[in-house]
Amino acid sequence: MAIALPKIVFSLTGHGYGGEFPPKKPSPTPLLRRKNRFQGVKTVQITSVLSKTNESMASTITDLDREEQEAEEQKMRRTGTESNERRLADCWREIQGQDDWIGMLDPIDPLLRSELIRYGEMAQACYDAFDFDPFSKYCGTCRFIRRRFFDSLGLPNLGYEVTRYLYATSNINLPNFFKKSRWPKVWSRNANWIGYVAVSDDETSARLGRRDITIAWRGTVTRLEWIVDLMDFLRPISSDKIIPCPDPTVKAESGFLNLYTDKDENCRFCKYSAREQILTEIRKLIQQYSNEDLSITITGHSLGSALAILSAYDIVETGQHLTQDGRAVPVCVFSFSGPRVGNVRFKERLEGLGVKVLRVVNVHDTVPKVPGVFFNEQVPKLVQKMAEGLPWCYSHVGIELQLDHKNSPFLKDTGGPTNFHNLEAHLHLLDGYHGKGKRFMLSSKRDIALVNKAADFLKDHHLVPPFWRQDENKGMVRNHEGRWVQPERPKLDDHPTDMHHHIKQLGLTSDS
Amino acid sequence: MAIALPKIVFSLTGHGYGGEFPPKKPSPTPLLRRKNRFQGVKTVQITSVLSKTNESMASTITDLDREEQEAEEQKMRRTGTESNERRLADCWREIQGQDDWIGMLDPIDPLLRSELIRYGEMAQACYDAFDFDPFSKYCGTCRFIRRRFFDSLGLPNLGYEVTRYLYATSNINLPNFFKKSRWPKVWSRNANWIGYVAVSDDETSARLGRRDITIAWRGTVTRLEWIVDLMDFLRPISSDKIIPCPDPTVKAESGFLNLYTDKDENCRFCKYSAREQILTEIRKLIQQYSNEDLSITITGHSLGSALAILSAYDIVETGQHLTQDGRAVPVCVFSFSGPRVGNVRFKERLEGLGVKVLRVVNVHDTVPKVPGVFFNEQVPKLVQKMAEGLPWCYSHVGIELQLDHKNSPFLKDTGGPTNFHNLEAHLHLLDGYHGKGKRFMLSSKRDIALVNKAADFLKDHHLVPPFWRQDENKGMVRNHEGRWVQPERPKLDDHPTDMHHHIKQLGLTSDS
Repeated sequence: MAIALPKIVFSLTGHGYGGEFPPKKPSPTPLLRRKNRFQGVKTVQITSVLSKTNESMASTITDLDREEQEAEEQKMRRTGTESNERRLADCWREIQGQDDWIGMLDPIDPLLRSELIRYGEMAQACYDAFDFDPFSKYCGTCRFIRRRFFDSLGLPNLGYEVTRYLYATSNINLPNFFKKSRWPKVWSRNANWIGYVAVSDDETSARLGRRDITIAWRGTVTRLEWIVDLMDFLRPISSDKIIPCPDPTVKAESGFLNLYTDKDENCRFCKYSAREQILTEIRKLIQQYSNEDLSITITGHSLGSALAILSAYDIVETGQHLTQDGRAVPVCVFSFSGPRVGNVRFKERLEGLGVKVLRVVNVHDTVPKVPGVFFNEQVPKLVQKMAEGLPWCYSHVGIELQLDHKNSPFLKDTGGPTNFHNLEAHLHLLDGYHGKGKRFMLSSKRDIALVNKAADFLKDHHLVPPFWRQDENKGMVRNHEGRWVQPERPKLDDHPTDMHHHIKQLGLTSDS
Repeated sequence: MAIALPKIVFSLTGHGYGGEFPPKKPSPTPLLRRKNRFQGVKTVQITSVLSKTNESMASTITDLDREEQEAEEQKMRRTGTESNERRLADCWREIQGQDDWIGMLDPIDPLLRSELIRYGEMAQACYDAFDFDPFSKYCGTCRFIRRRFFDSLGLPNLGYEVTRYLYATSNINLPNFFKKSRWPKVWSRNANWIGYVAVSDDETSARLGRRDITIAWRGTVTRLEWIVDLMDFLRPISSDKIIPCPDPTVKAESGFLNLYTDKDENCRFCKYSAREQILTEIRKLIQQYSNEDLSITITGHSLGSALAILSAYDIVETGQHLTQDGRAVPVCVFSFSGPRVGNVRFKERLEGLGVKVLRVVNVHDTVPKVPGVFFNEQVPKLVQKMAEGLPWCYSHVGIELQLDHKNSPFLKDTGGPTNFHNLEAHLHLLDGYHGKGKRFMLSSKRDIALVNKAADFLKDHHLVPPFWRQDENKGMVRNHEGRWVQPERPKLDDHPTDMHHHIKQLGLTSDS
């Protein structure tokens, strides 16, 4: 692996708490990892970080919970310290599902948990960055320019660079996924930002043990009525001859397929399908880093989970994950609250191709139960076999990690389905998860306030206002004349100029 | 008048557009006034400011309106320039209603209009500064510390210093006026901030021609159902022996009287009644500036208008407006969207005492129509006479300036009663008002975006989001540990330590 190492600095320890959004979680893992790597670093740093966080914890939980929590946490730190001594760089292939996470989920592997949270935060970034406001001229875009994406979100230490923004055409019947501005003149009538591709920088790559290409897909957060529409029919993946699949019995939900493959030639943002954007970008990046160890990690929440699974399948089915010298780059999906995507044959094909999928769900969330409420992977094999021909017999793929929001003492009992589906809540649940039936106990002390960022789910006594994430004055600023206006943005990032070349190279030209 | 003049500087011209909230309106009046005063200043400055504002205007109104507006505005500037040559310092007594505004309302006197807007903005400041959020620990307070009040609101050039915050006890049945935090531990369970007292600084006093003491009372902005409750009974002002009134037939609405006179001995914020706070503060300030020309200007919107009128009456009835050498400081109320306060006898008494009241109303607003929908100053004198004894025969006081939101081409037709009642909308209407039946035309080009600050009233094509005034992340900030928290505030301003002394001096001790 040809990555310059000297920039793996300790500055990460010193800051990261100075105003970023969302906060960098004070995970003990990277610190300890660094200690291993650089023998000069003393563990005293770790202790100081941990005791600091301890104080803040005390201010956010009630006196009632506190003592008990602290005792347990001290215990966890002692045991956790040992297991965390493992370095991500040494075991990343297991974390990425090489062995289907056997023995890593119950009890949960602390490194896997912290990686799940890290990728979950990259999926969450799609929500935090999305312009939902129908009164914004830029409704439906990413609020930030690509080159400053993680900085703008307060995640300068994430160590990834966004190489591409992803768009989809909104001419698709997926309620509440697309947002449109109410204003007459807008950036696009037909496109919506749906995610991004990012690559780990040298420093992070050294820590991860490989150059990581992450794709993060945006999902839906509000009004989950759309799931009803997902009772829509399964369609052979190969039916439109867009995604090549040798087996016509491999099927996926037609709405997801549309979202992934549709385009609008008249729009500069969605004149290429999401599929074309992804495949060309992956190809380009794999060529660029062909002499390094690589991974492709795809993440998404809700509808974004479906796109994550479809695109993972597509990348491997079409061989985009192969380097020039024929090595297969491992492709892994960390999905959150995702619905079913295809039929049993799709599952078999996907898994047969070696795509690894770990699906994090909350057992009370309805979205992972659809489509295929009646016929799915849980009915007896014989019934599955009989129902196989039916266009509404779905199957989940990969491995499921079940969480239960009722186990968190921080959350209200009274939340509705939107809360149960909330991504930040899943990240909070992950942080407290240690294994089936094990007591909920925050491991990284991830800020619980994040749960209420766009929800009303935390118990009242934590004193965190519901839905607190908002821009000052809805982004209005005073211009040089003192008038309040919506600022114009610099030219929106669309697609690289060499896109056509790459599409041709992949044999994806629309006239092909 | 012993005020230092040399600080009347031209710096006002150069800035004032750099991020304040709300914006300082680019009124041509002060510039021209200054030109008069200091012959060295050239009118070229005025032109440049005006043409600048012109440009911005173009960006906020549609092409359709623009040319016509601009032609009219040019004409207005030419004529306006002449009439504005009058200096406020020379005619402030007329502006403050010395002659009951005879001949100043139709067509409206440009100086009066700009003064009405200025005081209206001081009333609006009560809303902009109020913490309405039930999820805030400081719900019901002023969001800013007293000494930085106008700075925090982006009004550093206003030229007033807040000398006192006003509180009322919330143990009164006035729906939607008081706000309470949902959190258990709060700054006060029984108090709400209801306004402030401010005094003009030397520079502004020189411009105004006198030292101005302004009282601004907060009102209600949402859910106007409370007006129904105002059908409550009239009560003799002297009935509780709190406000001395020689005539027992002088009556006011009992809810307003309660709000003005009630207190809660157990609360450090409302252990003094609003009345005690006002009377002591006025007394103190009049003593402090006893050798200067003075004015007392009281402003308020909605329920704040009722408090403005009651307190103006009380100040004069109890002689607090008299200087040590026996001069009477003129007391003037500029009220907005105010309900009726008392009976005909109250009106006669108030006016007989020389209190001047100019009430700005929108003819479509229901609040100024209550209480006393059936029996009021508009029924024939004979009926009034007959109904005089009834406890629900009310009368407006002073002079009414009627605006009509339907005259503004900037506003939607579809607004509801809350819009019609909105204070920012009134200030916008004032800015465009020239006289009965005269065409609506913005005179100071006050930013129309302000109308939608806390309303959805502007026509869509102005591209101003509704309800855009909001804090970043609801005021949540990251603490030194990176956690999102509601920041603690410095000690809240309550009452001066010498309060008891002043109360005693006024004979207001509760044991009296």
